[in-house]
This record gives sequence, structure tokens and C-alpha cells, in this order.
Amino acid sequence: MVTINDVAELAGLSKSTVSRVINHYPHVSQEKKQKVYQAMKTLGYVPNSSARSLRNKKTQMIAVIVPRLMNPFFGQLIESMEVAATEQGYQLLICQTMYSKETELGHLELLKMKQVDGMILASLENEWETISEYLTYGPLIMCNEFEEDANIPIVKLDQIHGGYIATKHLLEEGHRRIAYCSGGHKSMVAQHRKLGFKKALKEYGLEFEERYSFLDAYSIKDGMRVFHELNQMEEPPTAVFTGGDEVAAGLITAAKENGVRIPKDLSVIGFDNQVVTKIMDPKISTIEQPIQLMAQQAIKVLVEKIASKQDPQKERYEFPLKLIVRESTGRSPLRAVE
Amino acid sequence: MVTINDVAELAGLSKSTVSRVINHYPHVSQEKKQKVYQAMKTLGYVPNSSARSLRNKKTQMIAVIVPRLMNPFFGQLIESMEVAATEQGYQLLICQTMYSKETELGHLELLKMKQVDGMILASLENEWETISEYLTYGPLIMCNEFEEDANIPIVKLDQIHGGYIATKHLLEEGHRRIAYCSGGHKSMVAQHRKLGFKKALKEYGLEFEERYSFLDAYSIKDGMRVFHELNQMEEPPTAVFTGGDEVAAGLITAAKENGVRIPKDLSVIGFDNQVVTKIMDPKISTIEQPIQLMAQQAIKVLVEKIASKQDPQKERYEFPLKLIVRESTGRSPLRAVE
Repeated sequence: MVTINDVAELAGLSKSTVSRVINHYPHVSQEKKQKVYQAMKTLGYVPNSSARSLRNKKTQMIAVIVPRLMNPFFGQLIESMEVAATEQGYQLLICQTMYSKETELGHLELLKMKQVDGMILASLENEWETISEYLTYGPLIMCNEFEEDANIPIVKLDQIHGGYIATKHLLEEGHRRIAYCSGGHKSMVAQHRKLGFKKALKEYGLEFEERYSFLDAYSIKDGMRVFHELNQMEEPPTAVFTGGDEVAAGLITAAKENGVRIPKDLSVIGFDNQVVTKIMDPKISTIEQPIQLMAQQAIKVLVEKIASKQDPQKERYEFPLKLIVRESTGRSPLRAVE
Repeated sequence: MVTINDVAELAGLSKSTVSRVINHYPHVSQEKKQKVYQAMKTLGYVPNSSARSLRNKKTQMIAVIVPRLMNPFFGQLIESMEVAATEQGYQLLICQTMYSKETELGHLELLKMKQVDGMILASLENEWETISEYLTYGPLIMCNEFEEDANIPIVKLDQIHGGYIATKHLLEEGHRRIAYCSGGHKSMVAQHRKLGFKKALKEYGLEFEERYSFLDAYSIKDGMRVFHELNQMEEPPTAVFTGGDEVAAGLITAAKENGVRIPKDLSVIGFDNQVVTKIMDPKISTIEQPIQLMAQQAIKVLVEKIASKQDPQKERYEFPLKLIVRESTGRSPLRAVE
């Protein structure tokens, strides 16, 4: 193995000078630096610190796995995690799965290879049985997306309540034909929201209608597509639960372009309270998700698990959601005469 | 050092079974898997593959450094890089600097520690002299943000032309008092755009006016702030070069709330052609940046550098920008009578 002595010899400099260069100490001339770097390169020398992965030392790095960063919900989640991780002295590596099982497993290898001290899963592509095998290598926690049976900490939002209060608001405005949009099929976040949606319907003696259900709704473009589909229905819905502010923004844009007035003809409720809700005309009613609190808690819990080195435990942390009524929801046109 | 034989002995299983578990082969019972994982944990055994960082083997990982993922420009850049990297068999790690020099150096350590095979810098916080020292450890390229003298490949957009065509469009509509917004001070992207802005002004015999210059403009909120500042001026501008679609969206929102008509009273031009330009009312005129082409080229160039193992060279790749006129720009109110 190449040592620092070999580098010093080839560079024609003292071992302490080489050490100063490697550790970025000040007051080393550019010329000496170049000599050291050239010698390191020629010999293929890697500073000792990179041997840490084999010495079971901590890397002070955390990885977080998300599906897509283009979704502003995850952009905000990552940003809050970044701030919290830095405060705790950890570096955050961000990994996208693009909804691929294989890519997710590739990212989990970071834990196996000891390149990170712990990992936060903000999305789940593989079965928990597959993912749980990686617990051997370090702590894993879930944040946002979840698997109820997993014997690890989960930091999440109360999605059942979120689905419930959004739908209840529409029902209270007299709407009875309410379209339901959602993204993932497997996602527990989506399943819980749907439970909340159904719970509210049930209180009004209504059942979930498949004809008003729209899947794969994630983006502004998807919102536009949903509008065109529901606009062609014989008995179109008078309100839409979109499951996302971007979907709501797309739906409203398409509606306006087609002369459908929001909220007079059609009420639209978003989900997330992203900044897009405040720049749309009309401004979008939505459900506020306390993303920052959830992100901070996730970092706090993971850092504790890294420090304690105990076996993972089933811990649950849940944050509440809040209805924000703006301009995109109003009285049902079918009930306006009452 | 703990070996696979130690794990097999403690687990009471054959070495080949342990190997099958480690390599995720099928047809191993859950019970055996648990025994192996338990033994690995007890002994602190790390599979051989994680020794690769010391054997100078490739990791098939690339890191990209961005300032903030909340900025949709970087969200889109990362997404295009992710797709291109996957096609080339590389895993992409994403690192945010949050504009911190220290955080940027922390991320550069990934290259030093051989945790990645190469790195793309989409932003720059430290001086090039500091960053260039990391070239000893592996290939670095710049994408989007740049430092002209750097002796490495740079994949960028023609920002001088972008600043020029946006400004020329406003001048052709009769505007003479044009506000100029920008984000970073040091950023070469920002400096080049300003060169283009000034070049267009010069063609019309105008000079850059500091009173119409607004700094630190990145977000929707910043756009709102800029509107309030310029709305209080004695001779307010009749048009704004925003440097970003989000800034434009915030500016338009604040203008509408204050009874200022877009574009009748004030023309606003964005930059990027993000999706927000199409959902705003009025839709935003902007400059289209070929983000996908730039991202693909960056991955292609870096993968080539990783394979060739040659010393870095000064290579330059530049993509053109395009004006897209929508509804937020029009005739100057001061020239309408001509």
C-alpha cells in the first residue's frame, strides 16, 4: 500500500508538508501543492481518511431517498432536512428513485457500503421485506411515505385527517359529486387520504364513485388532463379533490381556458399549500402540510438512532394537517338555489 | 479482520449460504437470512465489496452539486441528469450547498474519499483555485455555472445572448426604463446575462441605470418585494427583466393585487420557461433554456472523462437560448401614443 512517505519522497518534500497539503492547511505555496498532488496522482495515493469506511467509523453523512425532486413537496422537504442536518453536523446526500425499484436498491447500497451513517426513506418502491434487510447495516427510518408494520421509526402526517377535512369542506359547500384524484396506487399516503375522503362521504350518506376517480395525477399537466376528462362527462362533478396543488393549478388553468368558472361552476381544492396556491388566479384552497416540522423530526430521530446504536424500534410520530380556504372553492352550482 | 468464514461459523450455516444472502440471491429462507444478518451485525462484518473504495475500483456513482433544489431550474436539471446517468449505468447523488462554501467543500470530499467516480458542479461557492485541488482525486466538470479560466470541461448556456434577446424584445416594444433583477453577485451566469442586457441597451443608445437594478432576486417572494420597491419610484420602469420565471410570477401577482395591469402598465419578462409561465394569468413571456440538452451533454462528457482517465482539459460546450413571447410583455405605455 502506498503511504504518505512514498508521496513525500516522490514530491521531494517533507512528510509534514505533504500532510499540510492533504489537510488543506494555509501557508503552503501553490508550487508545493502541485508537486504533492502530482505525486499523489502518480502513485494512486488515497489519504487515510478514506479508509474510514472499513474501520466502522462514522461518515457524518445521511442519505434521503425521494421519488422525484421536481415535485415541490419533496423540494421543500429536502430543504428543511438539509438545514436540520447541517445544524446537527451531518452532510445530506439526496437520492431520487424516479419510481424505480432497482434504483431504490442501488441507493440502499450506500448504507451497506457504509458510505452513510443512516438513511431516511421518503418514498418506498420495494416491499418492506426487501428493504428491511438493509437494517443490518445501519439505521433506516421512514418519513412521509410509510409501511405500517415496519419495525422502525416513522415520521408522518395525518393523511386520513387531511383527506377528511378537505372533503368535508366541499360537502359543507353543498357538493355531492366530488371527483377524487390521486397519484400512486400502492402509496400508503394515498391510501390514507382516500380513507379520509370516504369517511367524510359516509357522514353525508354518500359512497365512493369509481367514475369520479382519476389516477396518476401528480403534475400541472396531469391536472389539465383530468379537467378535459371530467369536462366531457354527462354528469360532471361540481368539485375536485386533487391531492396536490400542482394538479389543482393545471385543472384551474384548463378550466379557465375552456370558459369554466372557478369556483362558480367548479370548486377545486389542492393539497400541500405550496407557493403556487398564492399566485394562481383564483388563489387555491388547500390543505397545509407541516413539512418543516416533519423534516426536523425525521433528522432528529435518525441522528438519535445513529448515536444510540440500538436495534430499531417501532416508533411513530404524526403531525396534523390544516384546511386553508382561499378562492378556488365555493358553493355547489347545483345547491345554489337552496 | 472479520471474514465471511467467521459469519458462517457464528450463524451455523455454510459459507455459500452466507454468500447467497449477502448477494441477495433468491431461494434463501427468511430464517437463514435473519441468522446471517444477526451474525454479521454481532461481528461487525462488512461485505468485501465495500472495500472497493480502497482498491481504486469504480463506484459507478456520480455526484452533482447544486445550490438549492427548491429552484425549479435545478429540479429540472437534476431530473434530466438522473435519466441520462441511469442510461449510462451510473447512480446519481445530489448535493445541495445552500450557498455555503463549507458545505460545498464537504461535498467535494466525496471525490477525495473515492465515494464517487466524478463530479458535476452546477454552482460554485469557493474560488476555482480551492476547488481545482480536488482534480487530483477524479474528474470534475462544470455545468450551467462556470469559471472561464478553469482547465476542465464546461457545459453551459449562452447567457449573454439570453440577456440580449430578452432586453431587445422589451426595447422593440418601446420600453426605455427597464428594471434589471438578478440573483447572485459573483455568479458568471448572472454576469453574462447582464452583459447581454447592457449590449441591447447600448444598441438603443441607453446606459445601465443603477436605480433600476434589483439584487438577490430568486423567488416568488423576491418578485413581490421588487414590485413594491419599483412601484414606489418617482419614475417607475415600464418593463422588468426578472432573470427568473418565479421572480416574474411574484412580480405579476403583486402588480395585479395593486391594480397595476400586466402588460398594459408594466411588461414583465421571465427566464427559464418553467411550467409556471403557462399557468399564470397573463401567461409569462420568457427565455427558453435547453436544460435537458445541457444535462445530457454534461453526463456524456463526465462519463467520457471517467473512462479515459486523462488529465482534465479546457473543453467548452454551449447551447443557445430562445425568446418566447406570451402575454406578459407588450407596448410601453409611454410609447403607446406614437
